[in-house]
Amino acid sequence: MSIHSRSIYDTLKRLNITLPPVAVPAAAYAPFVKNGTLIFVSGHIAKREGRPWAGQLGAGLNTAEGQQAARGIAIDLIGTLHAAAGDLNNISRIVKLMVLVNSAPTFTEQHLVANGASDLLVEVFGDAGPHARSAFGVAQIPFGSCVEIDLIAEMKTD
Amino acid sequence: MSIHSRSIYDTLKRLNITLPPVAVPAAAYAPFVKNGTLIFVSGHIAKREGRPWAGQLGAGLNTAEGQQAARGIAIDLIGTLHAAAGDLNNISRIVKLMVLVNSAPTFTEQHLVANGASDLLVEVFGDAGPHARSAFGVAQIPFGSCVEIDLIAEMKTD
Amino acid sequence: MSIHSRSIYDTLKRLNITLPPVAVPAAAYAPFVKNGTLIFVSGHIAKREGRPWAGQLGAGLNTAEGQQAARGIAIDLIGTLHAAAGDLNNISRIVKLMVLVNSAPTFTEQHLVANGASDLLVEVFGDAGPHARSAFGVAQIPFGSCVEIDLIAEMKTD
Repeated sequence: MSIHSRSIYDTLKRLNITLPPVAVPAAAYAPFVKNGTLIFVSGHIAKREGRPWAGQLGAGLNTAEGQQAARGIAIDLIGTLHAAAGDLNNISRIVKLMVLVNSAPTFTEQHLVANGASDLLVEVFGDAGPHARSAFGVAQIPFGSCVEIDLIAEMKTD
Repeated sequence: MSIHSRSIYDTLKRLNITLPPVAVPAAAYAPFVKNGTLIFVSGHIAKREGRPWAGQLGAGLNTAEGQQAARGIAIDLIGTLHAAAGDLNNISRIVKLMVLVNSAPTFTEQHLVANGASDLLVEVFGDAGPHARSAFGVAQIPFGSCVEIDLIAEMKTD
Repeated sequence: MSIHSRSIYDTLKRLNITLPPVAVPAAAYAPFVKNGTLIFVSGHIAKREGRPWAGQLGAGLNTAEGQQAARGIAIDLIGTLHAAAGDLNNISRIVKLMVLVNSAPTFTEQHLVANGASDLLVEVFGDAGPHARSAFGVAQIPFGSCVEIDLIAEMKTD
């Protein structure tokens, strides 16, 4: 294990980030499922003060707010990865993000909103952080949330 | 093989579910592709009486109808998994669902619509049923269908 | 290696297709990430003359134009696969496409738009070309682009 990878919890502490407990879905699905070295994480919606952060980008919410929402989701996703992997140092790569932005017809900065999550993941995971990504605007999100993100990550095999 | 897993076709019978034949796409794509232990299944659209079930949630269709549409798609997806795996008892896990709901701007119950599929998959596959999931509202779906779902499943290796 | 697979660059030449260099994202994400035999490719947006091809299907752009946009993205995706795999003959399967179509509320031919990409991939990759696919209409796409596609492909292990 590299010195770098040991420091993930130190990085979180330095960033003043406290990981939340995993939100256990009320329904018949799971926060994550593992297959081989992959962890498939369910879509996490934006929250503020523990409740869905409702709103639409380009109609009430601006890009900076969307980035803040995406950053908050990334923290929740890291919390779920912590639960899935046992130790975040076992995460060898963030593989893929799908970033859904609740978008008014004229809003075209979904990629900038997504950076709120991507930048934090790289800051926390270092070389294991850069990921493939798709970001786009959707018509709605559960509970009217402004952003939803799901993720695939890779775990070390040994 | 566990006693439980042997019973998948019994469960389908008990639920009075008849699996459809796989709908072979008219175009240059496939109903499913396997990689290692994973089966990637194409998006299946909602149908009623063999034709696309057109409509939008929140504008003509209500949540209960959306759930019925999602449940119907799940049956079609199980039919495709049967074709892909040869025997549904070889499916060791439903890994991930992406649930797209044709949504009016005010409709925010995509997660409840998605439960129509998730609940059936858990009922049919038992412990192998709970999956990671993303559900969200889209602007449109091919043929104007009200719901579309794609899926990743895991097969046993031996 | 089959005679067929040797001919991918010949096929591209015959189709008069020049692969573009990989567009390196400006942000903290990557054009692709590999895991095992899989290559996860980031969403690529439609471009024309090197700039985002803005517009909406069903509101200014028609299905034929959408197909042309999707075909152009497929060429860019092949360029990224070339960079990821070193040699396109190492691609053993196009596994999955997600095709996002910037759609007016009344546009329901996302599957036909998607064929612009699917048909080219089958023409170029032959038996390795047919893929699982989901196509649907989204509210917006970064830079207002008319189509966005991401892709999962499989590499040979030896």
